[in-house]
Amino acid sequence: MDLKEKLMTKIGLLGAGRIGQVHARAVSSVPSAQLVAVADPMPTAAEALRDTYGCEIRTIAQIRDSADIDAVIICTPTDTHADLIEDFARAGKAIFCEKPVDLDLSRVKACLKVVDEMKATLMVGFQRRFDPDFQALRAEIDAGHIGEVEMVTLISRDPGAPPYDYIERSGGIFRDMMIHDFDVARWMLGEEVETVQAAGSVLTDPEIGNRGDFDSANAILRTASGKQCTISNSRRATFGYDQRIEVHGSGGSVAADNHHQSRVTLANGAGYTRPPLLDFFMTRYIAAYAAEIEHFVACLNSGQTPRTSGYDGLMSLALAEAALESARTGQAVRPADLLSRS
Amino acid sequence: MDLKEKLMTKIGLLGAGRIGQVHARAVSSVPSAQLVAVADPMPTAAEALRDTYGCEIRTIAQIRDSADIDAVIICTPTDTHADLIEDFARAGKAIFCEKPVDLDLSRVKACLKVVDEMKATLMVGFQRRFDPDFQALRAEIDAGHIGEVEMVTLISRDPGAPPYDYIERSGGIFRDMMIHDFDVARWMLGEEVETVQAAGSVLTDPEIGNRGDFDSANAILRTASGKQCTISNSRRATFGYDQRIEVHGSGGSVAADNHHQSRVTLANGAGYTRPPLLDFFMTRYIAAYAAEIEHFVACLNSGQTPRTSGYDGLMSLALAEAALESARTGQAVRPADLLSRS
Amino acid sequence: MDLKEKLMTKIGLLGAGRIGQVHARAVSSVPSAQLVAVADPMPTAAEALRDTYGCEIRTIAQIRDSADIDAVIICTPTDTHADLIEDFARAGKAIFCEKPVDLDLSRVKACLKVVDEMKATLMVGFQRRFDPDFQALRAEIDAGHIGEVEMVTLISRDPGAPPYDYIERSGGIFRDMMIHDFDVARWMLGEEVETVQAAGSVLTDPEIGNRGDFDSANAILRTASGKQCTISNSRRATFGYDQRIEVHGSGGSVAADNHHQSRVTLANGAGYTRPPLLDFFMTRYIAAYAAEIEHFVACLNSGQTPRTSGYDGLMSLALAEAALESARTGQAVRPADLLSRS
Amino acid sequence: MDLKEKLMTKIGLLGAGRIGQVHARAVSSVPSAQLVAVADPMPTAAEALRDTYGCEIRTIAQIRDSADIDAVIICTPTDTHADLIEDFARAGKAIFCEKPVDLDLSRVKACLKVVDEMKATLMVGFQRRFDPDFQALRAEIDAGHIGEVEMVTLISRDPGAPPYDYIERSGGIFRDMMIHDFDVARWMLGEEVETVQAAGSVLTDPEIGNRGDFDSANAILRTASGKQCTISNSRRATFGYDQRIEVHGSGGSVAADNHHQSRVTLANGAGYTRPPLLDFFMTRYIAAYAAEIEHFVACLNSGQTPRTSGYDGLMSLALAEAALESARTGQAVRPADLLSRS
Repeated sequence: MDLKEKLMTKIGLLGAGRIGQVHARAVSSVPSAQLVAVADPMPTAAEALRDTYGCEIRTIAQIRDSADIDAVIICTPTDTHADLIEDFARAGKAIFCEKPVDLDLSRVKACLKVVDEMKATLMVGFQRRFDPDFQALRAEIDAGHIGEVEMVTLISRDPGAPPYDYIERSGGIFRDMMIHDFDVARWMLGEEVETVQAAGSVLTDPEIGNRGDFDSANAILRTASGKQCTISNSRRATFGYDQRIEVHGSGGSVAADNHHQSRVTLANGAGYTRPPLLDFFMTRYIAAYAAEIEHFVACLNSGQTPRTSGYDGLMSLALAEAALESARTGQAVRPADLLSRS
Repeated sequence: MDLKEKLMTKIGLLGAGRIGQVHARAVSSVPSAQLVAVADPMPTAAEALRDTYGCEIRTIAQIRDSADIDAVIICTPTDTHADLIEDFARAGKAIFCEKPVDLDLSRVKACLKVVDEMKATLMVGFQRRFDPDFQALRAEIDAGHIGEVEMVTLISRDPGAPPYDYIERSGGIFRDMMIHDFDVARWMLGEEVETVQAAGSVLTDPEIGNRGDFDSANAILRTASGKQCTISNSRRATFGYDQRIEVHGSGGSVAADNHHQSRVTLANGAGYTRPPLLDFFMTRYIAAYAAEIEHFVACLNSGQTPRTSGYDGLMSLALAEAALESARTGQAVRPADLLSRS
Repeated sequence: MDLKEKLMTKIGLLGAGRIGQVHARAVSSVPSAQLVAVADPMPTAAEALRDTYGCEIRTIAQIRDSADIDAVIICTPTDTHADLIEDFARAGKAIFCEKPVDLDLSRVKACLKVVDEMKATLMVGFQRRFDPDFQALRAEIDAGHIGEVEMVTLISRDPGAPPYDYIERSGGIFRDMMIHDFDVARWMLGEEVETVQAAGSVLTDPEIGNRGDFDSANAILRTASGKQCTISNSRRATFGYDQRIEVHGSGGSVAADNHHQSRVTLANGAGYTRPPLLDFFMTRYIAAYAAEIEHFVACLNSGQTPRTSGYDGLMSLALAEAALESARTGQAVRPADLLSRS
Repeated sequence: MDLKEKLMTKIGLLGAGRIGQVHARAVSSVPSAQLVAVADPMPTAAEALRDTYGCEIRTIAQIRDSADIDAVIICTPTDTHADLIEDFARAGKAIFCEKPVDLDLSRVKACLKVVDEMKATLMVGFQRRFDPDFQALRAEIDAGHIGEVEMVTLISRDPGAPPYDYIERSGGIFRDMMIHDFDVARWMLGEEVETVQAAGSVLTDPEIGNRGDFDSANAILRTASGKQCTISNSRRATFGYDQRIEVHGSGGSVAADNHHQSRVTLANGAGYTRPPLLDFFMTRYIAAYAAEIEHFVACLNSGQTPRTSGYDGLMSLALAEAALESARTGQAVRPADLLSRS
């Protein structure tokens, strides 16, 4: 093993599904990281990654016990996350875990306690924080170009709803979809949310309601100092994957536009038409996913704390719980109450 | 009096202040209407309009009793509106009244009862419904281009706060500012609002809070069928008068952009810069004010009911009341409860 | 006659056709001007203006000899312009004349000589110089925001070709259409054009070629100091009336966008669609026509020289002649040569 | 050597400078291609690529004689291109060569004759044809969405001028800069250019004139059927790398917008500001360079003729020659005459 290899961060990937493949590609593009092993119960999925990236296939337990693995990327089903984080924290590995840590607040709290005790590095995957446009937007705020942040407007719409069984397992629109907006809201507000008001509806597909979820939801977040954020979500958008942030401050506003399929405009008798938006989160956030893993590896090398920690995962989940309760009761809910209760 | 003059709608203007001047100009540009008289306690204000438009100066009582007056435009202070509407309704005049009819729901209801009894024509001034861009937006919905309306997003920001004493008299941000958005929301949703959730903050000027008002507010409206609308208001916008509508439906979305000071873009090392927005409601809505009065006159000629009735004024005020109560209590409030209570 | 009436500029209108009607309306909106008389061989056209604006109907000769006429607006056919300008200059009237003064350079020169001798005020109608957006663009240049002007790009496309007989009488695409761009080019370049290169094609309708004209044309203008301007014209644009200016300088660029029918964007599976452009020059330039006449009246009141003089008319016509010759021969042509030859 | 390796296209890279590095990265991202060797007189340049991509360092002669090399990418100085193309064509290698083949038309013709005789594959690097946005634009044309192409408008501006010695060696603005636009023009017009009219100026830096070049230039191209194209070039743009295409047709227009540094807009008292453009051709065309090499490899595998051939290189050079002659003489020049003369 030469010096260069010694300095490489050696990574194991747990789960070779859709998002696992995204992360494998991201690892391959980080010069100081190496995908050493992949684990997946589906042999063909693991083999595909092995053939593309030249890594080994191992079991999760083997990866945990491998001396040549520094860090893992957890892309397994949600209900395995907390256990795996604890296992790998105890095994001394650094951990990148797809959100959420768990759907249950107290389980998340218990898991983070283990992470803390083991002094493990845990990064939770909120890729929007690593999107170049959103980072450019945040940089305008940090540069003081809009003064004090006052009002944040987030609009996120998916091109279509996920499968019904995913909806049942995911914890619903607030916990699987709006949770990304909650994380962005916390990033933009720069202050914890004190109260959440939310409303949910079933407008796109009655079966979503039958499964106990909403498909359309709005929320208002308010911090102690009075900063506010509105979030609007829909499971349906015929024009693509709609992802917008606007932050209004005392000195101005800053907004990030969507990603269209091209920069071409067609003009004719029907008007001036730009193409629809990119319609898949992996295409839309391809640069963000790469930058996220690059950040994770850079943190391991530098000892820096990742920008999206287990605490961020916990707080966004608390906002999701609060929003769900508010949508059901009509009352403003304090996430801090839910956290102390759990 | 020749035939042409006979067919003219003869109008009296009550109040020659800022908005009265706007309406006087609007009347002068409607070929089938004639400004016959103006009343104002300030002689110079009335004289200015007389000199410009060649009308007479009369008292309010004289206008009410004038046989040569068909209709009045009420631009007096808010606390005189309800009394004047009742007086002129009883005098058999058609009435255009600036919003609101009154700040008190029960007073509005009583006033509308008189209007009904007298079978008077009453139009309440919600000029945004007459804005050409917003009408083009609504036309897209009516043409079925976005399918069923699901989620409405309204953003309204004023360049700066009004004087403190106005804030104290106006009923506050929900009743003097967001009321316009409530009217637009009702227009766009096409269905009455069942519940209102709202939050208010004092972010731009603590003195506004001292006067008992908010300067930044968000609301979520929800109809019985689950359609929703978010509204975001701020009393401060460094970039001009920010007025946006976006309507998301089952088949697409439609949005109206702001009015910049020109269509010019400057590109240099600092980037690509378009000018700020028009920063005054009279400039921004100049076409809307003209179209509003044109509609009023057209309704008088054709016997058609004005598009913005006293009932619209009542319902938007109920939404404002509900929003204020929700902002204070954190609870979702039903405007119907407020209406039946009042 | 009271003092106010004395201060009014009293105007006679020659020609009550389409553009005459535009100017009549413009006069009516200028407080310090009054349309006193109109002349037109078509009685109904003149009567329509009389009924709308309350002016008298007179013959051209009567208007020329009227003591109560200070100025005339000439909207008669092109081949009458030069004679009328001379007649009215000799009669001591101020003159606003629609472009062009004449299609023949030497006739224009002779006419301007009479104007000079009579010290008459002559303004030639190049309305684009009065367009608010183009003025805002020019203001950026004047403010030094793009440094020294280097390269100008003008794109002008008509929604459709004029009638064949107009094309035959108008002098063709360079003299009736691109002449407006030549005037804008001179305005933007701030320096006379030394050479013209041009190319013409018949692409939209062979009959236009049969009538001896082109329907698609490009030109390059170059000044003595090397500043350049490209102009692109087409008689066909399915998306409306396309009118764009872009000026590139040493320190930046400035561009004016088109006028869409509304500010609404529809998003659906087909993409994001803004409506087509306004498709008629009178709608597109409605503000410019009003500002043009306002400027004419203001010049008469103040003694200021109009911004678009007979000389501007002459120079733009010389550019048109040069472009036509270049399109026919392929050689760069010097407008100064054409002027000294004529 | 296993089957997978057998199917790989093995590539030698001649020249490890700036553009050579771009192509090396592009090769590394094409799964079916492998960078086997690199040659460069500067050892450190070659070593850097060897260390990054794991290829060997060889001399140009060694690469030519290597049995394990299928194709070469020529990124050496322009005056070596033609000789190298001939050498490698004779050696039976496929060739990708950066534009231009040579600055002399007859030398290019002679070189292409050798390529033809050897039936070698030659692709010339016009990367703009592989830009995703420009391809999307072309796809709109191919889909018939704008009808028949009539008028093309190309604007290309560099953020700054290249070093003086490059200008002296490059053949000047028409041969090193506008040549890319000529290629795009031929691609968009779909028909060869019959006449070229052009004008050149020195506006940004007098020293460029001293070196015998222009820094600002415009051209009009005209095909036999009358289709036209205008091209505007400047060596200076304070707002970044300005690259626009607009194609106007009988049924509509299609345009491709520039690439800004982000999709963020800042609004404040100064207006609405988007960031400047990407300001380097390698950043702007990063996707195009990758797609270009991918296409080259795909052609080798499939036997397909590359989309940008030696003939395209010849024709664009002829347009550049014609433009230069026209800028000097003021006369329209026929590239066919230059080609038959050379």
